[in-house]
Amino acid sequence: MHISPTISAAFGPSYRNVQVGQVAWLTPRTPLMLECGQSVARVPLAFQIYGQMNADKSNVILVCHGLTGDQYAASVHPVTGRAGWWSELIGEGLPIDTNRYCVIATNVLGGCMGSWGPKSIDEATGKPYGIHFPVVTIADMVNAQVALVDALGIEKLFAVVGGSMGGMQALQWAVAHPARVCAVMPIATSSRHSAQNIAFHEIGRQAVMADPDWCGGDYATHQKFPSKGLAVARMTAHVTYVSQASLAEKFGRGLQNRDAVGFGFDADFQVESYLRHQGKHFVERFDPNSYLYITRAMDYFDLAHSAGGVLAQLFAKSPVRFCVISFSSDWCFPTAESKVLVQAMNSAGANVSFAQVITDKGHDAFLLDVPEFKSLVHGFLEGCAKVKGV
Amino acid sequence: MHISPTISAAFGPSYRNVQVGQVAWLTPRTPLMLECGQSVARVPLAFQIYGQMNADKSNVILVCHGLTGDQYAASVHPVTGRAGWWSELIGEGLPIDTNRYCVIATNVLGGCMGSWGPKSIDEATGKPYGIHFPVVTIADMVNAQVALVDALGIEKLFAVVGGSMGGMQALQWAVAHPARVCAVMPIATSSRHSAQNIAFHEIGRQAVMADPDWCGGDYATHQKFPSKGLAVARMTAHVTYVSQASLAEKFGRGLQNRDAVGFGFDADFQVESYLRHQGKHFVERFDPNSYLYITRAMDYFDLAHSAGGVLAQLFAKSPVRFCVISFSSDWCFPTAESKVLVQAMNSAGANVSFAQVITDKGHDAFLLDVPEFKSLVHGFLEGCAKVKGV
Repeated sequence: MHISPTISAAFGPSYRNVQVGQVAWLTPRTPLMLECGQSVARVPLAFQIYGQMNADKSNVILVCHGLTGDQYAASVHPVTGRAGWWSELIGEGLPIDTNRYCVIATNVLGGCMGSWGPKSIDEATGKPYGIHFPVVTIADMVNAQVALVDALGIEKLFAVVGGSMGGMQALQWAVAHPARVCAVMPIATSSRHSAQNIAFHEIGRQAVMADPDWCGGDYATHQKFPSKGLAVARMTAHVTYVSQASLAEKFGRGLQNRDAVGFGFDADFQVESYLRHQGKHFVERFDPNSYLYITRAMDYFDLAHSAGGVLAQLFAKSPVRFCVISFSSDWCFPTAESKVLVQAMNSAGANVSFAQVITDKGHDAFLLDVPEFKSLVHGFLEGCAKVKGV
Repeated sequence: MHISPTISAAFGPSYRNVQVGQVAWLTPRTPLMLECGQSVARVPLAFQIYGQMNADKSNVILVCHGLTGDQYAASVHPVTGRAGWWSELIGEGLPIDTNRYCVIATNVLGGCMGSWGPKSIDEATGKPYGIHFPVVTIADMVNAQVALVDALGIEKLFAVVGGSMGGMQALQWAVAHPARVCAVMPIATSSRHSAQNIAFHEIGRQAVMADPDWCGGDYATHQKFPSKGLAVARMTAHVTYVSQASLAEKFGRGLQNRDAVGFGFDADFQVESYLRHQGKHFVERFDPNSYLYITRAMDYFDLAHSAGGVLAQLFAKSPVRFCVISFSSDWCFPTAESKVLVQAMNSAGANVSFAQVITDKGHDAFLLDVPEFKSLVHGFLEGCAKVKGV
């Protein structure tokens, strides 16, 4: 919730508070070279810090968020007023124990909560970038995080932890910056975005871009907002985050505030009402262009691409300790995809453990109160902390 | 393709050709009472007939279509120019052999290929019904088919066969009109639409209704057409019709006409291009309001509802012979839902066989060239024909 004086001082005069939270204006030693070819000399990155860094800064855990997450992992979200998305996991006495670890959570590049993204003002035009923002990748997101970690004077992170797209970032850290991180937990993720996931993302993007209020990405200038398109995108994605079994159990064919179907197009069924609610609330907190950019970053993620498709090659001689976690009912990032990762790590002789948590909560399980998952996170971090003497 | 003189004569002067195909104007003995409470004295139903009826009209198979199908099961579609959706299955020497059987395929109530639907002109206003069309159900669709079968002088159908929503109609025939049908094949279907399927349908409807060109359902009057919304709806549905494995095998992360990703929002990936193609072509042949109505009819389908939720009760003393078929990779209508049906039928002592076809083609398998499926259809019909002496 607060930046300790030591850390905020690291940014000197370029540090400032903005409405959505704390933002570091980073000036990396060498400009940030994006994968698309553009370079950025100075980049704003929003972040939150939970807990205190120890003297040698060896207790820092970087927590990476998923598609629609942000830096408010363990504190109240300033827009929604709701608890942080990992408030079950991060805090005093919780699996990621802020009495022991210092947790940094950033908002990704391309995001809409203060980091450099399509909502940011393009200094060349004085207007928001909109779709003139460069297409960023998971590697770009991680490189910006590296610049932040540098600015904070942290030599080596104790751990990088994340679920879904957060897991992609965690993997990217392990592969691109293996000397900068001790332990990595990729949760409910994959080394490459699947065709089905690309398909669902493309549907979401088409829904946003089909909304005339999207205005070719320039809705801010036109004082419009493609809320209907973004709501449809969110509804589609949301169905992929939950399991068929959990929808059946939670809602089944239950009716919403009525005894019989209404022979019309109102939300007769609870599941319809629930989905509409999901769509409606999402548009209050998320930027439609950010949705396009971040889904694109996930689509582009293919860890083995740089190694000619040979995933194992990336983990040969890796000093990183891994714990890969999947959820049995996750059909968005199925256990099979975690196993591909684990197999590659094992065949390269990497230090990896793997657990599949049995649950009917689907992909969203990593955001929910799942005791077995929580003890896995706790146990793995404890084990690594013992070895590293943290 | 042609109506035999005997049959067309059955309609007398009220029979006529319309652009989309042959339409019977049915005047049932008692008005059609829709489940929503409205009654209809005279209803147009479009249909096609393949093969010849035998003298005692005992060789008639009613083929029921899925959500976006129509009466052109085995003949060229007049709008798209493509082969019928079951041209693999229906024809001379094919599993539903038109040398032996007479196949009738109707366009469902609520459809857009000539049957009474939201595109039809409301005589009260002289304009298309739009969303003033009554919400019809699977039972209503079947009752209209019964009126057609009556008009054609068919006492008892040899079989009713259908996949997906067609399977729902087949089940409805068996339960509501058991004396009018010998054999029923419900394929890739369920006794009740699942919460997940309702969710995906609701997304599709929201996509259509979010398109300003939908004009509150009155696009025809305003000379508009919500093609973007309908395309998004189709893309969403289409992903549910194919399996994750088939998308991975067919497209994987393959790029579309390029060597590297384009760092933009064009269709970089083949799977994106494929989906856009699906959306684009669908809007050329389908009516957006029909999409709303037919998805709603599927959502409302809950066979056991009338029996207090006890499915088995519906099959007690059923004279119908059943063959239930599912496909291993169908996650839209999973095998588990077919097993619920089979268990209920078995526990009621009904004559039922069941087969799960192992395939990675997903829900769409029932529309594709799957040899094992085709021999199941052939074999079951042959077996029933032997018993019935057809």
